[in-house]
Amino acid sequence: MNILFIGDVVGSPGRDTVKEYLPKLKEKYRPHLTIINGENAAGGKGITGQIYKNFLEWGAQAVTLGNHAWDNRDILEFIDQAKNMVRPANFPAGTPGKGLVYLKLNELEVAVINLQGRTFLPAIDCPFRKADELVEEASARTPFIFVDFHAEATSEKMAMGWYLDGRVSAVVGTHTHVQTSDNRILPGGTGFITDVGMTGPYDGILGVERDAVIKRFLTSMPVRFEVPKEGPVQLSAIMVELDRKTGKTRKIERILINSDHPFYS
Amino acid sequence: MNILFIGDVVGSPGRDTVKEYLPKLKEKYRPHLTIINGENAAGGKGITGQIYKNFLEWGAQAVTLGNHAWDNRDILEFIDQAKNMVRPANFPAGTPGKGLVYLKLNELEVAVINLQGRTFLPAIDCPFRKADELVEEASARTPFIFVDFHAEATSEKMAMGWYLDGRVSAVVGTHTHVQTSDNRILPGGTGFITDVGMTGPYDGILGVERDAVIKRFLTSMPVRFEVPKEGPVQLSAIMVELDRKTGKTRKIERILINSDHPFYS
Amino acid sequence: MNILFIGDVVGSPGRDTVKEYLPKLKEKYRPHLTIINGENAAGGKGITGQIYKNFLEWGAQAVTLGNHAWDNRDILEFIDQAKNMVRPANFPAGTPGKGLVYLKLNELEVAVINLQGRTFLPAIDCPFRKADELVEEASARTPFIFVDFHAEATSEKMAMGWYLDGRVSAVVGTHTHVQTSDNRILPGGTGFITDVGMTGPYDGILGVERDAVIKRFLTSMPVRFEVPKEGPVQLSAIMVELDRKTGKTRKIERILINSDHPFYS
Amino acid sequence: MNILFIGDVVGSPGRDTVKEYLPKLKEKYRPHLTIINGENAAGGKGITGQIYKNFLEWGAQAVTLGNHAWDNRDILEFIDQAKNMVRPANFPAGTPGKGLVYLKLNELEVAVINLQGRTFLPAIDCPFRKADELVEEASARTPFIFVDFHAEATSEKMAMGWYLDGRVSAVVGTHTHVQTSDNRILPGGTGFITDVGMTGPYDGILGVERDAVIKRFLTSMPVRFEVPKEGPVQLSAIMVELDRKTGKTRKIERILINSDHPFYS
Ligand SMILES: [Fe+2]
Ligand SMILES: [Fe+2]
Ligand SMILES: [Fe+2]
Ligand SMILES: [Fe+2]
Ligand SMILES: [Fe+2]
Ligand SMILES: [Fe+2]
Ligand SMILES: [Fe+2]
Ligand SMILES: [Fe+2]
Repeated sequence: MNILFIGDVVGSPGRDTVKEYLPKLKEKYRPHLTIINGENAAGGKGITGQIYKNFLEWGAQAVTLGNHAWDNRDILEFIDQAKNMVRPANFPAGTPGKGLVYLKLNELEVAVINLQGRTFLPAIDCPFRKADELVEEASARTPFIFVDFHAEATSEKMAMGWYLDGRVSAVVGTHTHVQTSDNRILPGGTGFITDVGMTGPYDGILGVERDAVIKRFLTSMPVRFEVPKEGPVQLSAIMVELDRKTGKTRKIERILINSDHPFYS
Repeated sequence: MNILFIGDVVGSPGRDTVKEYLPKLKEKYRPHLTIINGENAAGGKGITGQIYKNFLEWGAQAVTLGNHAWDNRDILEFIDQAKNMVRPANFPAGTPGKGLVYLKLNELEVAVINLQGRTFLPAIDCPFRKADELVEEASARTPFIFVDFHAEATSEKMAMGWYLDGRVSAVVGTHTHVQTSDNRILPGGTGFITDVGMTGPYDGILGVERDAVIKRFLTSMPVRFEVPKEGPVQLSAIMVELDRKTGKTRKIERILINSDHPFYS
Repeated sequence: MNILFIGDVVGSPGRDTVKEYLPKLKEKYRPHLTIINGENAAGGKGITGQIYKNFLEWGAQAVTLGNHAWDNRDILEFIDQAKNMVRPANFPAGTPGKGLVYLKLNELEVAVINLQGRTFLPAIDCPFRKADELVEEASARTPFIFVDFHAEATSEKMAMGWYLDGRVSAVVGTHTHVQTSDNRILPGGTGFITDVGMTGPYDGILGVERDAVIKRFLTSMPVRFEVPKEGPVQLSAIMVELDRKTGKTRKIERILINSDHPFYS
Repeated sequence: MNILFIGDVVGSPGRDTVKEYLPKLKEKYRPHLTIINGENAAGGKGITGQIYKNFLEWGAQAVTLGNHAWDNRDILEFIDQAKNMVRPANFPAGTPGKGLVYLKLNELEVAVINLQGRTFLPAIDCPFRKADELVEEASARTPFIFVDFHAEATSEKMAMGWYLDGRVSAVVGTHTHVQTSDNRILPGGTGFITDVGMTGPYDGILGVERDAVIKRFLTSMPVRFEVPKEGPVQLSAIMVELDRKTGKTRKIERILINSDHPFYS
């Protein structure tokens, strides 16, 4: 069971990059399942119903989110109909959408969980306890449990990896938009990486116009962050190969495509 | 001109790892200069005079610091005598120590600058303006300027990289203790990586006992963070090769040594 | 039903002030019940079993806490035996102690609830939902419900006041150590004040040595915060008069005693 | 020399309240000078050129700002022409506007300084060092120096008060929108209050619709904060009486006008 996960897709450059490379990645890696983090897919802020549909058309089976989930208010119109949209599960009870989705794959099923950290991020429910609850539920149905932990602090992300080690197939971090090189298989068999990284403009800062970001740091004044429409792009992803019996990770491989790391088929 | 930079050394496991691998790394990579970030070298918190001396004896030429610089009060006793100790330059005027150090290398000189970010970290002076000031000063003496930018947020680190692109040899990030895979040469010739990563316990969380960290996230109660004395270790480093004429980066290479990535000579 | 509430007692100067003035305040205001916030009672950090006992001996019936509850590890030894100790109720399940205590008063009962905010404070469980739960429980037993909401942000404190308006007798804020002048009765009958203020050294900063606090702001370096042993003191409190039938607040009065506002019997 | 200072004016209800009560306050207190904090005057977010003019027409001589200064981009059009507009002085060099303004009053002059805190607020320049610099400059011209310190944390505000004690006439806090009851004269003669409080809707939360604020705390989802157009209002102010010779504070009096505290002429 191979799962391809594409990290935070930013704006139209990110979407175009997914559209272009997803077929190539599928041919190369033969994933049974593709998941995309889409919290920045609409101009860097949130996602629309149309983009969600595009992601599925282009070959993804599920879309995860994060702290930017609600930035585009369009989401409130469609999230409850979007069967394979997964928002951070530890938003409080009553939040639209759901944080755990099961994907059918022939006779198998894969649980996809999205959680959000609280360090340097808004205070929502405890992601660790919510993980306990959802993992217990999912474990009753399937050994294949994939967790996108959307968080800022490396400590909180590593804590989640170790906390769930042996109980889920993989924990992959998102949100910082920079891929880490620490992909590994923890002793209990859980695949882990602190951050998958971002998909979108390569010469921006986290995918947005770098002049605006620098201006913000220099002036502390309000600045409008735009996704650059032109320039080189990047795709960041992770590929996990799960044991068909146990659901444990047998291999976890980083994927990084940009002008410094061209794609080879 | 080759510079080897070893990321945040944590506690005695980190120090032992430096002692063991530094000779091997020197043999393999032939750096002209080795710099170590030592902000966590003394039990995870700060550094002592003895450790500083050891680092120099073992083959480093400079030691940089970060937000944990002052955690071990021993530093106040020796920092003003420690010629090659570099603390974040943007601590306010009057702070002991210095943030820019020149290292002689035959007829050449290398400027080593340490700066600290402000996002999710204490409010000190502006690192960007301090960078302008020190880079201007250093540029008058040498084209070889190496910057350790100790910061939490990926946005602030990338902003610094782009801000200094073309004006310094390299900007390497430290502090998150997790190596990123985004090492690259920016268009102006500045080598960049968001974070070099940590040197110390491999199965802790950022180098400290993982049970304590997890307990902290689960309970929000005070917890004592200890560096585990036993278990596997890791070394994270970066190697930059600078053009002898221009001081620009010609190559920037990640180094990661742990049980999943054994060292090959 | 009159309740006297004394705000964050800091160190021995704060404790001495309680000991001296509590009898006088009782004589003047004739409270049926006295509650003390003791999160800083032990040298500014936490509380000990001995101090808790002293507070009860000196005439209090309950002691509330806050983010500093756990700073003195002595508390873990006695909190589960301390019948009238109330710690923030929205610490996660499994936290020692309890967040709701009932105090008997002849045939009547008063529920005392302690909650902690999350803005600029650690991420714990939602104080609003925990309030819903505890208020529902307490309402089944008594119309007298007193809430100490320990929080930093004025917005979160006012939000709690309005959120519980008409459902509890009073919501009084603690934690900022500075008394606010906004004591009022909200339209639903709930008494409210954003912060009761601090009891302890008058010429410190929040009750600790002011030179250390100023040094911290000037240097961003670690500083030891001590409670000054000498100098003028202050007592900050609030007095609520509740309707015997409805439990609603009929009067909410600020009390501030210091060298600028001497106590008059 | 009497100075009236009106705390954070929020939206049209706040402006209407200033317009209505300023003449009455002037008649009652006979200030020689009136200063208004206007950072929220335009719909809660920033200020416009028209509002600035209105404040002067209605009888103010200066307008101070804070972290919301730049929320309404109109300010960039007029701030450099607005002679008596004072923005936080410790924004970095190059920021439009100025942080120190001298007001002529017959043969006398009053220096008005605006500073912004950094705790729980964006990282700008050190307010303490900037205070040193401006106070030194102003002291050479006049003993009357009035400081609006716009900050969140009570510790930082009290630290500023004590830091400047004896060097300025008064330090008054703004930003939390809740008036504190701790107005006092520090030993060196500086008048101080932690926060003057807010002018605008009385039944909102910090001046904005309370349902939106509560929803934000309950859901952590984006919410639009609007200033309620109807309902009761409040005016918060401080009156300082300065010694004509020394510039020191002889009296510092809180003013709070709302339905619970009606204005008496
Ligand atoms: Fe993102
Ligand atoms: Fe995010
Ligand atoms: Fe570190
Ligand atoms: Fe650090
Ligand atoms: Fe306190
Ligand atoms: Fe507190
Ligand atoms: Fe304001
Ligand atoms: Fe403000």
